[in-house]
Amino acid sequence: MQVAYLLYDRFTALDITGPHEVFNSVPDVESIFVGEKTGPYRNESDTLSIVADRSLDEVMAPDILVIPGGFGTRALLDHEPLLDWIRAVDETTTWTTSVCTGALLMAAAGLLDGRPATTHWLARETLAGLGANPVPDRVVFDGKYVTGAGVSAGIDMALTLVTEIYGPEIAQAVQLGIEYDPQPPHDAGAPEKAAPEIVDVVTAVFTAAETG
Amino acid sequence: MQVAYLLYDRFTALDITGPHEVFNSVPDVESIFVGEKTGPYRNESDTLSIVADRSLDEVMAPDILVIPGGFGTRALLDHEPLLDWIRAVDETTTWTTSVCTGALLMAAAGLLDGRPATTHWLARETLAGLGANPVPDRVVFDGKYVTGAGVSAGIDMALTLVTEIYGPEIAQAVQLGIEYDPQPPHDAGAPEKAAPEIVDVVTAVFTAAETG
Repeated sequence: MQVAYLLYDRFTALDITGPHEVFNSVPDVESIFVGEKTGPYRNESDTLSIVADRSLDEVMAPDILVIPGGFGTRALLDHEPLLDWIRAVDETTTWTTSVCTGALLMAAAGLLDGRPATTHWLARETLAGLGANPVPDRVVFDGKYVTGAGVSAGIDMALTLVTEIYGPEIAQAVQLGIEYDPQPPHDAGAPEKAAPEIVDVVTAVFTAAETG
Repeated sequence: MQVAYLLYDRFTALDITGPHEVFNSVPDVESIFVGEKTGPYRNESDTLSIVADRSLDEVMAPDILVIPGGFGTRALLDHEPLLDWIRAVDETTTWTTSVCTGALLMAAAGLLDGRPATTHWLARETLAGLGANPVPDRVVFDGKYVTGAGVSAGIDMALTLVTEIYGPEIAQAVQLGIEYDPQPPHDAGAPEKAAPEIVDVVTAVFTAAETG
């Protein structure tokens, strides 16, 4: 089982490292970090670099594709070399997945036309504009297309997919191995749960970052 | 506010990217990935590289130190150059923190002598052997020393610390920004919650990996 993790400039680190930690805990899974060119890719806040060990043309037949989100997605929505690769590998993937605004790239590649899909809660309108049907769920399956909501949802997306592929025992062993027994100190992780003024602040910060 | 993230060979990626995504969502926080030498560090399963942008001697006064875990910790428990640096920066940190078996490095540096601390559930005995008092909690505060349990617990550790430093509103905004509304598909993320046979499997796999 080969899992390809797509890197690009201004990705969100947890979007990609969350699913990686989950899939990578399953025996005999090969992880490949891939980008248009090999070498380090910088995250959206310019604080961290993860290395692409392979270029796109070296990774043409992953079983699972993981597309992370990040503010960098917007600049790539008409970047045909990347969209062509996504379309090409999707022809033979068993599962094509995204986290957060990675769904925008899947949609821009034409893979989510008319399909239910999730993304970061602030990107639902943008996702609809690209032809998908946004669903406010944390993990959405539609055939082989699996989308996770914002950032940290990649962990749940991957654990749900491991359950689907390998069964609940393997998924539970993975969960125990990464001690995923979440105990957030607040119940504010979704716009329906956070106070309205918190939602307003986050909306303002993200909108400024996206346009800045 | 400067946060230093310590890299070393065979670290666990989510241990360090979880807290990074949280602290990095707070305005005016500077993130620095640091290692003995600058350049890429490979994770414990040899699947991913994160780049150290600074060497240890370039980062001598972080406000917060984050020490991740990984199978690589065991080889460093008597590696004085690294332990000396941890001791040196700890003299002026506001908070010295660890995730997972990062607590073993904190303890080896002498910072946890007689202190309550948490770590990956499989490393509690090793932590006790290094002088700390292991506590089976997800996040443990003892003065300025903050330890998180295994791997994914770094997210909860960092959110709890952001709450302590910046207050609940900022922490809730961070939580909403990374959409941390966890919905694991199973309730198996702690040894007290998983089935005994799952605990046995994970214990066997981790013990083999550690000695392999």
